[in-house]
Amino acid sequence: MKLTIAELAQRLSATLFGDGSGQVTSVGPIKTADVNTLTFVTDKKHKALSVNSKAAAVIIGEHTGELPMPQLIVKDVSAALIEALKLFAPELKAPAEGIDPSAKVGNGVKIAKGVSIGPCVVIDDGVEIGENSVLASGCKIGENSKLGKNCRLDGNVVIYHNCTIGNNVIIQANSTIGSIGFGYSFIDGSYRLIPHNGGVVIEDFVEIGANCCVDRAKFGNTVIGAGTKIDNLVQIAHNVVVGKCCLMAGQSAIAGSSKIGDGVVFAGKASVIDNVEIGDQAIITAWTGVTHNIPAKQQVFGIPAMEKNEAFRLVCLTKRLPKLNEQLKQLDHKVKKLEGLMKL
Amino acid sequence: MKLTIAELAQRLSATLFGDGSGQVTSVGPIKTADVNTLTFVTDKKHKALSVNSKAAAVIIGEHTGELPMPQLIVKDVSAALIEALKLFAPELKAPAEGIDPSAKVGNGVKIAKGVSIGPCVVIDDGVEIGENSVLASGCKIGENSKLGKNCRLDGNVVIYHNCTIGNNVIIQANSTIGSIGFGYSFIDGSYRLIPHNGGVVIEDFVEIGANCCVDRAKFGNTVIGAGTKIDNLVQIAHNVVVGKCCLMAGQSAIAGSSKIGDGVVFAGKASVIDNVEIGDQAIITAWTGVTHNIPAKQQVFGIPAMEKNEAFRLVCLTKRLPKLNEQLKQLDHKVKKLEGLMKL
Amino acid sequence: MKLTIAELAQRLSATLFGDGSGQVTSVGPIKTADVNTLTFVTDKKHKALSVNSKAAAVIIGEHTGELPMPQLIVKDVSAALIEALKLFAPELKAPAEGIDPSAKVGNGVKIAKGVSIGPCVVIDDGVEIGENSVLASGCKIGENSKLGKNCRLDGNVVIYHNCTIGNNVIIQANSTIGSIGFGYSFIDGSYRLIPHNGGVVIEDFVEIGANCCVDRAKFGNTVIGAGTKIDNLVQIAHNVVVGKCCLMAGQSAIAGSSKIGDGVVFAGKASVIDNVEIGDQAIITAWTGVTHNIPAKQQVFGIPAMEKNEAFRLVCLTKRLPKLNEQLKQLDHKVKKLEGLMKL
Repeated sequence: MKLTIAELAQRLSATLFGDGSGQVTSVGPIKTADVNTLTFVTDKKHKALSVNSKAAAVIIGEHTGELPMPQLIVKDVSAALIEALKLFAPELKAPAEGIDPSAKVGNGVKIAKGVSIGPCVVIDDGVEIGENSVLASGCKIGENSKLGKNCRLDGNVVIYHNCTIGNNVIIQANSTIGSIGFGYSFIDGSYRLIPHNGGVVIEDFVEIGANCCVDRAKFGNTVIGAGTKIDNLVQIAHNVVVGKCCLMAGQSAIAGSSKIGDGVVFAGKASVIDNVEIGDQAIITAWTGVTHNIPAKQQVFGIPAMEKNEAFRLVCLTKRLPKLNEQLKQLDHKVKKLEGLMKL
Repeated sequence: MKLTIAELAQRLSATLFGDGSGQVTSVGPIKTADVNTLTFVTDKKHKALSVNSKAAAVIIGEHTGELPMPQLIVKDVSAALIEALKLFAPELKAPAEGIDPSAKVGNGVKIAKGVSIGPCVVIDDGVEIGENSVLASGCKIGENSKLGKNCRLDGNVVIYHNCTIGNNVIIQANSTIGSIGFGYSFIDGSYRLIPHNGGVVIEDFVEIGANCCVDRAKFGNTVIGAGTKIDNLVQIAHNVVVGKCCLMAGQSAIAGSSKIGDGVVFAGKASVIDNVEIGDQAIITAWTGVTHNIPAKQQVFGIPAMEKNEAFRLVCLTKRLPKLNEQLKQLDHKVKKLEGLMKL
Repeated sequence: MKLTIAELAQRLSATLFGDGSGQVTSVGPIKTADVNTLTFVTDKKHKALSVNSKAAAVIIGEHTGELPMPQLIVKDVSAALIEALKLFAPELKAPAEGIDPSAKVGNGVKIAKGVSIGPCVVIDDGVEIGENSVLASGCKIGENSKLGKNCRLDGNVVIYHNCTIGNNVIIQANSTIGSIGFGYSFIDGSYRLIPHNGGVVIEDFVEIGANCCVDRAKFGNTVIGAGTKIDNLVQIAHNVVVGKCCLMAGQSAIAGSSKIGDGVVFAGKASVIDNVEIGDQAIITAWTGVTHNIPAKQQVFGIPAMEKNEAFRLVCLTKRLPKLNEQLKQLDHKVKKLEGLMKL
C-alpha cells in the first residue's frame, strides 16, 4: 500500500496542513518513523519527539507551528490512527467461504451464508453459525451451541455444548469456552463433580485473547457482557457474570459466581475471589487480590485489596519501617535515661 | 425431562413431606427458582431465602415447618443434589463408538471395546486405551502412553510419550500433559536443555481443567495422586508429586520436584517454589507463595507464606501503621518535652 | 540401552577410577539409584548421599576416596550428565519425513528437505519452513510466516501470519504465537481494537513451553532474543523485546512494550508492567511485580518490586510488627508515668 499524504488526508477525513505530495508506505510511532511513515501525536511527549522526526506526516488533534512535517488534523487521533492502520494492514488472503472438506459437520446444523469453516473443524449436532463468521482450523463447537454473525474463532478454539456466542465476537487461538467448572462436593471420602447443567453466554463485540478459559455454569449461565475485551491466559470461573465494556488484562481471573459491573478494569494478574460483587467502573490494579465487594468507581490495590490510595500509603509506611524501628529504639533509650534520672 | 415431585423423591431415595404431584423441569438455586424448579437447602442462608420461594420442592437435610413447599428429606443434600442434576442434565448425543476415519492410529496400538476416537485424533505407536474411554477431536497421544478405562479427553488435549493415565480420568480442552520440563544447565555461555527421560503418572479419578500443563520428569515420574481435582490454567512442573484427593484452583502452580501430601488444598493463584514439601491437608490460601516446607494441616497465607492467623495479624497491624506512626510522633514530642524539663 | 561403565567413560570422555565392567541401564539421582544406575555428584549434599549409595557409577568433578563406587571424572558434570541422559533417552520413532496427506498446504509455500509435517497441520500461503523442522499434528502456520531449520513445533501450536521463527526453536504443545495484542482505544463509548500490523520475531535456540502466548506487535515486532528459554503458561504481550539468554519460569509475564535485557531471569509468576526496561542479568524473583525500570544485575522482590535485600529486610520488620506495637505501648505507658511525676 502506497498513498500520498493528500490521499491519506482524504481517507481519514482530516484537514491537511502542509505539502500533500509525499508518499506514505507505513504507519508507526515517532521513535522509529522514517521518511515514508505516517506517525501520530497523542500527548506532549510524542509532540516533543516529533520536532526532530523525519516522518512523512503526522496525525494530530490541532495544528501546531512547532512541527516540521505535514499535519493531518483530526478530531480524534486514536480513531484516525485505527483507520490509518487498517489502510496499511498486511494484505491477507480472505478466508475461503464454505466448509473445508476435512471439517466434520453434525446433523441439524445451520450455517448461514458467507461462513468459512476451516480444515479439521468439528461442529456437533444442532449448532447454528451466523453470517460471515470464520472458524479457523481445528476449532470444535459442541452440541447445540450458537454462534452469531461476523465472529472469528482462531485456530484450535474449543467451545463446548449449549454455549451462546453473540455477533462480532473474536476468540483467539487455543482458548476454551464452556469447560466444566471447578465445583465438587466431598462425599464419602472423595470429591464428586457437581454436574454443570448451565451454559455460557458471550454477548456481542466481546473479544477474548489466546489460551483463555471460560467455564460453563452449574445453573443458568456464565455471562460475558457486550463489548468486554479479554487478554490472554485469563480465567473466568463458573457462574461469573461480567458486565459490559470491561477490560481484563493478561492472567487476570474471576472466581466462581462473582458479579462484575460494567466498565470494570482488571489490570494484569488481578483477580477476585468467588461470590463477591465489583461495582461499575471499579479498577482492580495489577496483582491485586480482591476478597470483598468493591463499590462502583473505587480503585483497589494489594493482597488483600484495599482502596488504592490507602494501600499506597501503607506501601510507603512499610518502606519506612526501618526508620520507625530506629526511632523507637532511640525513644526507648531516652525514656530509660529519663527514668534513671527520676530514679524509677 | 419432566418428573413429578413424588417420582423425584423415589429416584433420590428421599422421604417426601408434602404434595408429590407437582411437576419439576429443572434444578436450581433458591434465588432463581421458579414454580417448576427443584431447589436445595444446605445452610441457614438458603433456608431463610426459601421461606418466600415459589420453588416446586426443596431437597433438605431435615423436615422444617418453616418452608411452604414440598420437602425431599435426604441424609446428604450435596449427594442428592448431584443425583438430581444428573437427572436434569442436558441430553447430549453419546460419543460415537469406534475410530473416526480422519483419526490416525499408529502401529501396535491397543484400543479396548467401547472406546470413541474423534476426528483428527492422532495416536502414536504402542499406545493403549482402556474400555469406554472417549477422545474428542484433535487430541494427540504420544508413543507408548497408556490411558485407562472410562477416561474423557476433551478437544485438542495433547499427551506426550510414555505417560500413564489411570481410570476415570477427565482432562478438559487444550491441556498439555507430559511436556518437557523447564530444566537447563548453563554450559559454555548458553542454556542447554536437560533431557527429560522420565514420564507422567496420573492416577485414577483425577480431573484436570482446561489449558493446564503437567510437565514430564527428568528422572522417574511427575505424579498426580488418585482423586485429585485440578482447575484451569494450572502449572505442575517436572518431578512434582501431588498426593491423593488434593484440590488445585485456577492458575495455581507447583514448581519442580516439590512434594504435596494428601488432601492439600490450593486456592486460586496459590503456588509453591521448587523442592519443598507440603504436609497432608495443608491449605494454601489464595495468592499465597510458599517458600518452605509446610507441616500437615497448617493453613498459610501471604508472600512469602506464613501461618494464616499470624499472617492475618500482620495484615491488620500493617493497616494500623498510620496510627502507629502517629503515636510514635506524639511520644517523640512528649519525650522531648520531658527532656527539656529535665534540662537534657 | 545397556552400557558397561568403561563404555560410558569412553562415550562421556571421562577418566574412569574403579572397575569398568559393571552394567548401566539408566541415569538417575542418588536418592533412587539402584545397582544399574549411573548417578552424579554436583554438590556436597549429593556427595554425602553417595557414600551409602549402591549406584553402578558416579559422574563427578574430581576423584574422591570417600565414595565406594567407580567414578567417571569429567570437567563439567552438568554437560556430562546431559550426554549420559541422551544415551539413555527412551527410543522414540523418528518423525516421518514429508507431508501427511491430511495436512493442508497453501500456495507458494517453501518446504525444505527433511521436514516432517504431521496430520491435520495447516500451512497458509507463502510460508517457508527450513530443513529438518518437525511440525506435530494440529499445528497451524499463518500466511507468510517463516520457520528456520531444526525447529520443533509440538501438537496444536498456532503461529499467526507474518511471524519469523529462527533456527533450532522448540515450541511446545498448545502455545500461541502472534495473536493480536491487547490494545484498544475507547472511542464513542466503546473499546475499538487497534490493528496490529506488526509481527513476532523469535530468534535462534529459543525454547517455549506449553500453553504460552506471544502477542504480535502493533508496529514493528515483538522479539524474543536468541537462546532465551520460556516455561509454561507464560504471557509475552505486544511489542515486548526480550533479550538473549533470558529465563522465564512458569506463569511469568511481561506487559506491553517493556524491554528486557540479556540474561534476565524471571522466577515463577514474576511479572513486569508495560513500558519499563529491565537491565541485563537482573533477577526478578518469584511472585514479584515490577513497576519501574530495573538496573542491570539488580535482584528484586515484592509487589511493588524493591531491591531484594531491602525487600527482605522489610519482610523481617513486618514480621516484628507485633513486637514493635508492644514496645510502643510500653513506652507510652512509661512516658505517661514520667509525665505524671513531672505533673504534666
